[in-house]
Amino acid sequence: PVVPRARGCAGSPEVVPTCERYAVRRLPFGRLADGDVAFFERLLPGRVVTGEEEVKPFNVDWLKSVRGCSQLVLKPQTTAEVSQILRYCHERNLAVSPQGGNTGLVGGSVPVFDEIILSTALMNQIISFDKVSGILVCQAGCVLERLSEYLEEQGFIMPLDLGAKGSCHIGGNVATNAGGLRLLRYGSLRGTVLGLEVVLADGSALDCLTSLRKDNTGYDLKQLFIGSEGTLGVITAVSILCPQKPKAVNVAFLGCQSFAKVLETFTTCRAMLGEILSAYEFMDEKCMELVETHLKLSSPVAGSPFYVLIETSGSNSTHDEEKLNSFLERAMASGLVTDGTVATDDKKIKASHLRERITEALTHDGYVYKYDISLPVGKLYDLVTDMRARLGQSAKNVVGYGHLGDGNLHLNITAESYSHSLLDAIEPFVYEWTARCSGSISAEHGLGFKKRQFIQYSKPREAVVLMQQFKAMLDPKGILNPYKTLPERS
Amino acid sequence: PVVPRARGCAGSPEVVPTCERYAVRRLPFGRLADGDVAFFERLLPGRVVTGEEEVKPFNVDWLKSVRGCSQLVLKPQTTAEVSQILRYCHERNLAVSPQGGNTGLVGGSVPVFDEIILSTALMNQIISFDKVSGILVCQAGCVLERLSEYLEEQGFIMPLDLGAKGSCHIGGNVATNAGGLRLLRYGSLRGTVLGLEVVLADGSALDCLTSLRKDNTGYDLKQLFIGSEGTLGVITAVSILCPQKPKAVNVAFLGCQSFAKVLETFTTCRAMLGEILSAYEFMDEKCMELVETHLKLSSPVAGSPFYVLIETSGSNSTHDEEKLNSFLERAMASGLVTDGTVATDDKKIKASHLRERITEALTHDGYVYKYDISLPVGKLYDLVTDMRARLGQSAKNVVGYGHLGDGNLHLNITAESYSHSLLDAIEPFVYEWTARCSGSISAEHGLGFKKRQFIQYSKPREAVVLMQQFKAMLDPKGILNPYKTLPERS
Repeated sequence: PVVPRARGCAGSPEVVPTCERYAVRRLPFGRLADGDVAFFERLLPGRVVTGEEEVKPFNVDWLKSVRGCSQLVLKPQTTAEVSQILRYCHERNLAVSPQGGNTGLVGGSVPVFDEIILSTALMNQIISFDKVSGILVCQAGCVLERLSEYLEEQGFIMPLDLGAKGSCHIGGNVATNAGGLRLLRYGSLRGTVLGLEVVLADGSALDCLTSLRKDNTGYDLKQLFIGSEGTLGVITAVSILCPQKPKAVNVAFLGCQSFAKVLETFTTCRAMLGEILSAYEFMDEKCMELVETHLKLSSPVAGSPFYVLIETSGSNSTHDEEKLNSFLERAMASGLVTDGTVATDDKKIKASHLRERITEALTHDGYVYKYDISLPVGKLYDLVTDMRARLGQSAKNVVGYGHLGDGNLHLNITAESYSHSLLDAIEPFVYEWTARCSGSISAEHGLGFKKRQFIQYSKPREAVVLMQQFKAMLDPKGILNPYKTLPERS
Repeated sequence: PVVPRARGCAGSPEVVPTCERYAVRRLPFGRLADGDVAFFERLLPGRVVTGEEEVKPFNVDWLKSVRGCSQLVLKPQTTAEVSQILRYCHERNLAVSPQGGNTGLVGGSVPVFDEIILSTALMNQIISFDKVSGILVCQAGCVLERLSEYLEEQGFIMPLDLGAKGSCHIGGNVATNAGGLRLLRYGSLRGTVLGLEVVLADGSALDCLTSLRKDNTGYDLKQLFIGSEGTLGVITAVSILCPQKPKAVNVAFLGCQSFAKVLETFTTCRAMLGEILSAYEFMDEKCMELVETHLKLSSPVAGSPFYVLIETSGSNSTHDEEKLNSFLERAMASGLVTDGTVATDDKKIKASHLRERITEALTHDGYVYKYDISLPVGKLYDLVTDMRARLGQSAKNVVGYGHLGDGNLHLNITAESYSHSLLDAIEPFVYEWTARCSGSISAEHGLGFKKRQFIQYSKPREAVVLMQQFKAMLDPKGILNPYKTLPERS
């Protein structure tokens, strides 16, 4: 895999080419000096990473689409250490790129130039869990899957679940307002995150780490940090409300003959499954082909242009199965669904894997242009159809899948390799199309480095100006994750 | 009923006495002149209220506990009109008190001195409702109950429900981050509010009125206005996600012999009712007495020191009843509950009324000292017991009830009339007690005018300083709802 778009080191170290229409110039931050490294080594003995090879994995994102040239990774263990790091960097005007599991898809988690990488990898302690309230308090660097395992032993689950769960950190999840598969049921992190501890750009710690479901004393400051991609502060600890582990989980995998039927199936399903519906995911046949071709997985249902994965989670397996079966009977009888299977435990895993591993299958198909769009559900697939028609033979595959229940389409376009002309054919067309439908050009992935210049397609100018004011107020020197989220001021 | 605490007009018009420990001085805003009234009459023909008697209901809060002396009420119908009002006031340095249904309990919705009242009463249009997504977009002045009725006809419900629903405005609900009875099930407004339109202090409109479940393009600005009590901007329109109307609603009313059993019943109930549990409310026997004495309502269950109201909402009445019945059998058999009734439709209404009308019953009992506290559920009732012991005969009644499922206690103390010495016995004791348990001194009512000086019991100094910076940034002249939410700068 190549790193075709952003590079902060190769060629001129001062300019990231990304693509012609979007070049970035290094801002006048301080340069790392030997004295700085010595300071950090004293502060974090044995937890300072230097050396090109050692630092490399932290410089490149998961998609291998952007690459920075940081020379230094710091691994604090405590909030006090994060405070000291930022206080020092603030004084020295050194830029900092906070990094969790480095699983982001928009280049938000890696440096663009030589920013110091502040990794939360060693901030992985669970602070407390209360079984009566279901409230978990933990450090930002806890890996999502580890938290899930810990909670399941106690009869609870995390309110979010992502394909990247094996690597992503809860702090990164919160910093990017991650969505994922359970949002339909348990809502967004804006509701489930109860408290945060954050270190601000100047090193001061802001303790809003309460564990209360309700607290209306003043403005809800933590909300500003949720989804701010590390540009306003470094999240060091999280308090989050966790639902009880459902006693019964069922999965149905269905084939539909048209997207209209996918939609109608959703409406029927929501009415009949009601409170036990926990996921409604769709994928087109192209996705299925890619998963079969590249990962050798086989589909439990075949021969349909669209597939739907329905998950239910409930407290009574008999009731849940009854509801699911009546829904399936209705869906089959009325021709909404042409083929379907309710998964047994074994098949359940397979069906979920099919959906979860689409991202991975795509990376095997060539260079991937990724779009994560919110649209009114009725129009969700029109964008895929229009894009396919527009690109014709110049793309290898144009596929659509996503969280239909949330109005969230993942549009992916693959090609043998990266090309400017294909990108020109896709952008800004995809953003203009989305803006015409009042959609969002980033439903859950964030803007990071790769999408920030397109914010105006989803936000009015006044909103962007206000965001810039918040940034200037909280981080006047702009040292926190520069070149991310907000567009360059023109 | 008297207005014992805050008065902005009687006596010296420059100082509000509230209570000795908390006096407010009028800030140097402009004074209303004839030319100003003439301007507003041209802008809002027939929608400008003047004259002491006509303005009076807008000057006094629902509890009759605070009273301003505004001479002017403005009733805009459109966002453009709100913009013009604020632009004018900003230029003239005239203070403005935004007002919805005026049902707040902390004096946040009425002026303290002569602030111009900006009423959203005529901004009552529903803009759109989408039956597929369940997203409602409406003006800020829509009355909550009207919205509920409108939605129920279409098979949906509002995600919040309050005792004040007949009067409160959705804009006010959002501005105060109202909680209410359905929070346990549908989460807070921070998750269900998808978009807002807000007019800022200088009259500029901020259009974040999107109707998307997911949108991660930049900072989520609307969150700052949710719960800011009109101090950062005037909410003019709301986009909100509405759940489907449950097909079956059941209510159980139970008696418990101790608070420990109320808690254990909650744990059992949450495990057995799972996803259909939509409310778990408790009240002590004193509450019940007051409702019986002052409102002549009778309880379906008697002779217990504690009562619990459980509501289930689900999509299948047979399943729901089965779940509820097995839970009740278990609760009875294990002695958690000594008496109970599952409500038929008729009784259902009665049982809910008992709970909903406690606030009203209290106002008939004398002067009421109201506290709205978040605590770890295990300690919830200890505060009531401690307070009762502390006050002894100096209080008429000390009662506790609330949203146990959310850890939210409503502590109410009644007396024949207001007295400084009783207040001194209650405060700051109640706040110190709460702070020791890391609770919140305002779970859902907000801080408004009456609680703002106590914010430090629930928020660290750094957080309050940051809030003041946000206020200064968004409203540099401080004209929006002055004397509210944030403490006076010392």
